[in-house]
Amino acid sequence: MIQIGIIGAGRIGKVHCESIMRYVKGATVAAMADPFINEQTEEWIRQIGVPRIERDYRKLLDDSSIDAVLICSSTDTHAQISLEAIAAGKHVFCEKPIDHSVEKILQVRDALVGKRLCYQVGFNRRFDHNFAAVRTAIADGKIGDLNVLRICSRDPQAPPVSYIRVSGGIFLDMTIHDFDMVRYLSGDEIESVFAAGGVLVDPAIGDAGDVDTAVVTLRLRSGALAVIDNCRRSVYGYDQRAEAFGALGQVAISNDTSSNAVLSDAHGVTAEKPLLFFLERYMQAYVAEISDFVRCIERGEPAPVGIEDGLQAVRIGLAAKRSLETGRPVALSEIEGE
Amino acid sequence: MIQIGIIGAGRIGKVHCESIMRYVKGATVAAMADPFINEQTEEWIRQIGVPRIERDYRKLLDDSSIDAVLICSSTDTHAQISLEAIAAGKHVFCEKPIDHSVEKILQVRDALVGKRLCYQVGFNRRFDHNFAAVRTAIADGKIGDLNVLRICSRDPQAPPVSYIRVSGGIFLDMTIHDFDMVRYLSGDEIESVFAAGGVLVDPAIGDAGDVDTAVVTLRLRSGALAVIDNCRRSVYGYDQRAEAFGALGQVAISNDTSSNAVLSDAHGVTAEKPLLFFLERYMQAYVAEISDFVRCIERGEPAPVGIEDGLQAVRIGLAAKRSLETGRPVALSEIEGE
Amino acid sequence: MIQIGIIGAGRIGKVHCESIMRYVKGATVAAMADPFINEQTEEWIRQIGVPRIERDYRKLLDDSSIDAVLICSSTDTHAQISLEAIAAGKHVFCEKPIDHSVEKILQVRDALVGKRLCYQVGFNRRFDHNFAAVRTAIADGKIGDLNVLRICSRDPQAPPVSYIRVSGGIFLDMTIHDFDMVRYLSGDEIESVFAAGGVLVDPAIGDAGDVDTAVVTLRLRSGALAVIDNCRRSVYGYDQRAEAFGALGQVAISNDTSSNAVLSDAHGVTAEKPLLFFLERYMQAYVAEISDFVRCIERGEPAPVGIEDGLQAVRIGLAAKRSLETGRPVALSEIEGE
Amino acid sequence: MIQIGIIGAGRIGKVHCESIMRYVKGATVAAMADPFINEQTEEWIRQIGVPRIERDYRKLLDDSSIDAVLICSSTDTHAQISLEAIAAGKHVFCEKPIDHSVEKILQVRDALVGKRLCYQVGFNRRFDHNFAAVRTAIADGKIGDLNVLRICSRDPQAPPVSYIRVSGGIFLDMTIHDFDMVRYLSGDEIESVFAAGGVLVDPAIGDAGDVDTAVVTLRLRSGALAVIDNCRRSVYGYDQRAEAFGALGQVAISNDTSSNAVLSDAHGVTAEKPLLFFLERYMQAYVAEISDFVRCIERGEPAPVGIEDGLQAVRIGLAAKRSLETGRPVALSEIEGE
Repeated sequence: MIQIGIIGAGRIGKVHCESIMRYVKGATVAAMADPFINEQTEEWIRQIGVPRIERDYRKLLDDSSIDAVLICSSTDTHAQISLEAIAAGKHVFCEKPIDHSVEKILQVRDALVGKRLCYQVGFNRRFDHNFAAVRTAIADGKIGDLNVLRICSRDPQAPPVSYIRVSGGIFLDMTIHDFDMVRYLSGDEIESVFAAGGVLVDPAIGDAGDVDTAVVTLRLRSGALAVIDNCRRSVYGYDQRAEAFGALGQVAISNDTSSNAVLSDAHGVTAEKPLLFFLERYMQAYVAEISDFVRCIERGEPAPVGIEDGLQAVRIGLAAKRSLETGRPVALSEIEGE
Repeated sequence: MIQIGIIGAGRIGKVHCESIMRYVKGATVAAMADPFINEQTEEWIRQIGVPRIERDYRKLLDDSSIDAVLICSSTDTHAQISLEAIAAGKHVFCEKPIDHSVEKILQVRDALVGKRLCYQVGFNRRFDHNFAAVRTAIADGKIGDLNVLRICSRDPQAPPVSYIRVSGGIFLDMTIHDFDMVRYLSGDEIESVFAAGGVLVDPAIGDAGDVDTAVVTLRLRSGALAVIDNCRRSVYGYDQRAEAFGALGQVAISNDTSSNAVLSDAHGVTAEKPLLFFLERYMQAYVAEISDFVRCIERGEPAPVGIEDGLQAVRIGLAAKRSLETGRPVALSEIEGE
Repeated sequence: MIQIGIIGAGRIGKVHCESIMRYVKGATVAAMADPFINEQTEEWIRQIGVPRIERDYRKLLDDSSIDAVLICSSTDTHAQISLEAIAAGKHVFCEKPIDHSVEKILQVRDALVGKRLCYQVGFNRRFDHNFAAVRTAIADGKIGDLNVLRICSRDPQAPPVSYIRVSGGIFLDMTIHDFDMVRYLSGDEIESVFAAGGVLVDPAIGDAGDVDTAVVTLRLRSGALAVIDNCRRSVYGYDQRAEAFGALGQVAISNDTSSNAVLSDAHGVTAEKPLLFFLERYMQAYVAEISDFVRCIERGEPAPVGIEDGLQAVRIGLAAKRSLETGRPVALSEIEGE
Repeated sequence: MIQIGIIGAGRIGKVHCESIMRYVKGATVAAMADPFINEQTEEWIRQIGVPRIERDYRKLLDDSSIDAVLICSSTDTHAQISLEAIAAGKHVFCEKPIDHSVEKILQVRDALVGKRLCYQVGFNRRFDHNFAAVRTAIADGKIGDLNVLRICSRDPQAPPVSYIRVSGGIFLDMTIHDFDMVRYLSGDEIESVFAAGGVLVDPAIGDAGDVDTAVVTLRLRSGALAVIDNCRRSVYGYDQRAEAFGALGQVAISNDTSSNAVLSDAHGVTAEKPLLFFLERYMQAYVAEISDFVRCIERGEPAPVGIEDGLQAVRIGLAAKRSLETGRPVALSEIEGE
């Protein structure tokens, strides 16, 4: 039974906690740590069966009975805690992004060298049934050589501006999942990035120095093109689609709904809206990613989404950011960490 | 150039007139006849380019320059006019049903014996792209031996009760198209019929001695089952679907719409309603059926939908009527005309 | 923590065991009993964490620490074990059908009178997200008064003929779910039944005295009509659809798939087949039905699917059987147990 | 009856000829002119009922009985013939693009000043039912302010390299339709263009100095973004889709098929491929655009797609071309003709 410590008891920390306690075989949450934990959360944690709650995550790192930690704290602490956890010999599952700075990610990468530790990054979409079907179709040659990959990702509503300010910007916070999907689905690496963006949802997002709507064009090493469009607000729910077009065909995925019921009445023929947001949409993927993490620890195998994946997604995000700032395409080679 | 006379200037007469004058190659409407024609209709006929209007259809039958007539008058006149037209050596296209009485249809059939005349019955759905796709799939063996055929046919709104009274009842007026579709799609004949019905749309229809909602189960000679469900009123438009299920698969058709646009908004994901009614839905089929009729005249070939098809559909309708009246399944052999 | 004993360690017994141990909050499987249990199954049961295995189910009934039993044994034992379990003061979850005989079901019903016990019947589709959406739409008045209800249910492959022989026939074994769905979705009771059937899949099924394909028409008390079509074999997978049509509109559900990926290539535009069979399709429903059973025990509430539901579905099945045998519609009042 | 002369008897000239002779009310083709016409084409023209065939288009311009000309000759002659036709007082329908040079288009624009002539450009997609539904939804405020517009346009197969060489490149030949759609659907003008492209279909296209696959990002004056993806070869047929996303929702159109039949079998659930190419997909649009042209002539109204629309689409195409050449976004103001 793998003993897991969760660092950070915010929304995503609780998601993982519940998923491990209820659905992940072979693992249990031995402890949760959060300096700002409140009574309500403490009660929630106890009720779900976690026996130990700490303020200081170092208590978890110092506990030799804990095999692995999940880093679910704020982004600015990910790299530092990663380093300490690796030093303490813990397997690490780190939420995305590892850091906004390539340098810090490289430090984590260096720290891992020679260690037989699993280090997994929280790109949950890699564990989703729909995206997996696209990857399988491509990998199995069903569409032949890839020509164009289109990804659409829209959130149901924008986060608070206070969050936007520390988020690292849309590309490192939101598009980073899509950048990872481009790499994952294509099995290829990115050569250059052109990003266009606008403030069309909320001027306050613009005041915070970010855009809320973006279209990013990426050139892959194979010469294929990828295009991502994002928006921070979609009134019809969480929009998560992808389409891969190649020499022999095209494979596309659409949104999941809570039922496939269709109502035909005087107003039209109406299906359900997409599932509301990431918890509804990706719950099974969260379970699957931690299950895989646990399995890799058990078997001594490398994590299915490793430090390199975490690094590359951030580099692409930084290239997109620079492209938006300069108004020109940016080669990935311009970004350190190659 | 085939010279056509149209008998009856009601709705379906005008549909055929317009379709011939605008879309049917190799034919023209030489004259229209209707005893109750009004000024507005006369003007409409002239404007569309028909050179001659008569009150008495016999003028058209007497005119040797007219090659063929379309019988679009009320049902109770179809058989009589058919007989006169055949006697006059005209090719005949007769709207459905030929008659409510098998005996009269048999008289028409007898009259055709030995004549080299095209006699076509107006089962327009046989010329529809969707229904044709089902037939082709079955005929090509795509679903293997047929097990179950389901047909759904719902009108957007019930006709006036005055019409219901002379319509022959729902089975001879509305379901007759579906009975023909069962024969056409399956390529098989009907053995027995069980009809259930109810008055769920309008009590006035019940007062007129008819039902407005029906489910009819048919056993085919092969042993396959067919089930038809009808309703006189569908608030979302004209509902025209079919599904054939067999040993190797299933083929299904759904409704056509005026565009495939889908709106996703706070209320749901909404597509367009089906096309409103038969004029919108089957306009191309009306053109195709008359084009085929003209081609068969030109080539001296038998009509694609003949007197036998007209006869069988009426026999099935009469069996359904008797089933509803008696509350038991009725073998087709119980109905005269075998 | 509700202590559950499972009687019968066949396929469905194991499904419930796994679902309780992994997903059902507030309950645990305290013991499993099966006279024919083998080593492999014993190991499976222990590994999933069930502490006790018995040959004789009476050991479970005698154990006062066990609150409830799940009857997953063969159908011919359901009523007898139900009676014994009720006598022992256990809450009971009984797989469908309770029995092929109305008399025996009535004995169980009588035994429950005055007892504060939950008695739930295993109509899992009532806990399915798609069917629930249809019921909600109807209950919320979205389609107005019901006119026609269509249910299609096709299994991917026929069970062994040895099973067919003891199954009670297609109507008590397979269609019984659809009969329950007609009652559940419509919120109405059945007045009469007409069943047509054929042996189109496998002559051996006919030799065993059953049909493999059926179309059943039901008249509801409201006057609405329902039509069910079944087949024992569908090459494209488990086909589970329903459509309710009423005065204000229609609501329809289609099949679930393992992903919504669509491949467009030189052959066409291809989506995935429906989920293979009931385990894949209804796993969440199995979890939900037991979760509800447990909640009702905890709260002292009546079961969401009670003895009356189990009784009526069997009565409808028997009416269908008699209809097929006699070739005429059968009123439900002809079947004892009203 | 508007008398029309068609200049150019190639594929698109014949499409217009047939559509006018068969479907366009109030107009007839009085003559066709083509210097390279062969016997087979001459016969085709006569058979369809066109009374006059010329080698020299000037014969048509000199004929005062001809009201309007359709310029369907090669692109390099469009502007010159336009000028001559305008000078001769003819209404003009000119196939796209008017010219590859802005200067020449401006000459045509100048020539039209003060003339009461209809000058229409052949952007047929403006007359398509699906694209019209998107425009209507946007114009009616169904999706609120536009945020992102996505257009996908893929041809079933690349034209011969000899055609590619004189085509002006993918942006002026193929994407020009999509550029027009961005303006038409959004009701807005373009501010800047970034084009990425690659040679992924056929190296010979690269050798001819063109790309065969492209992703173009456009910034609109409102700040909204548009993204077009094109490919010269799609094995599953002509792919013509669009999606407009805004503050209140999203509207999307997909491909049309020859029937909506869906086959479920052991391989999956398969719908038909999109209609093969532009003749199949846009035939009704060709009829509608000429019908509108004729109506505008009759009523003395300006053409629904005018010289300005022809000019702007070419300017956007030239900006895309420059963007591809320079690897940077190009402001539309950099292109002459503002």
